[in-house]
Amino acid sequence: MYGLIGKMRAQPGKRDELAAILLKGMDAMPGCLSYVVANDTADTDALWITEVWRDEASHRASLQLPEVQAAIAAGRPLIAGFESQIVTAPLGGVGLQAD
Amino acid sequence: MYGLIGKMRAQPGKRDELAAILLKGMDAMPGCLSYVVANDTADTDALWITEVWRDEASHRASLQLPEVQAAIAAGRPLIAGFESQIVTAPLGGVGLQAD
Repeated sequence: MYGLIGKMRAQPGKRDELAAILLKGMDAMPGCLSYVVANDTADTDALWITEVWRDEASHRASLQLPEVQAAIAAGRPLIAGFESQIVTAPLGGVGLQAD
Repeated sequence: MYGLIGKMRAQPGKRDELAAILLKGMDAMPGCLSYVVANDTADTDALWITEVWRDEASHRASLQLPEVQAAIAAGRPLIAGFESQIVTAPLGGVGLQAD
């Protein structure tokens, strides 16, 4: 499996709007086993996105999906920057959706 | 929802053993919506544990479960330390197991 743990900073006051865009239309991503968008409780403009994919190719392919391209276009102006992007090799756990 | 993103450092060479302990017997945790154990691909002794719980009380209660207590006891000697523990408020996503 291929995993990503990323911290994204929204433009001031835009976190809710950005999160809503990230959460929309993510159900149709082949190879996506887990994808969670979360507010950082200690940092009012920060979001954490934790992802588990079947493999890196599935993640790369998802970036070409029309829904994802649309989300990227809509979200980009609301993003102030990316902080810490960790690549992981998930081993297992609870809540890994059947592919 | 209540989330945790934590980086744990295993004693040198003990990551696989520690991960196996963390992955064992985690199915019976009430209120656990997601729990993923992952290797850090850039740091050979580091594990990332990403968790989503129904609420903070569910997480706290899980620490008292006999299986979890046993895992903590078995894992403790293999842990060199904890690095970055982020508390999040998950908003939604894919792979959040029904409670």
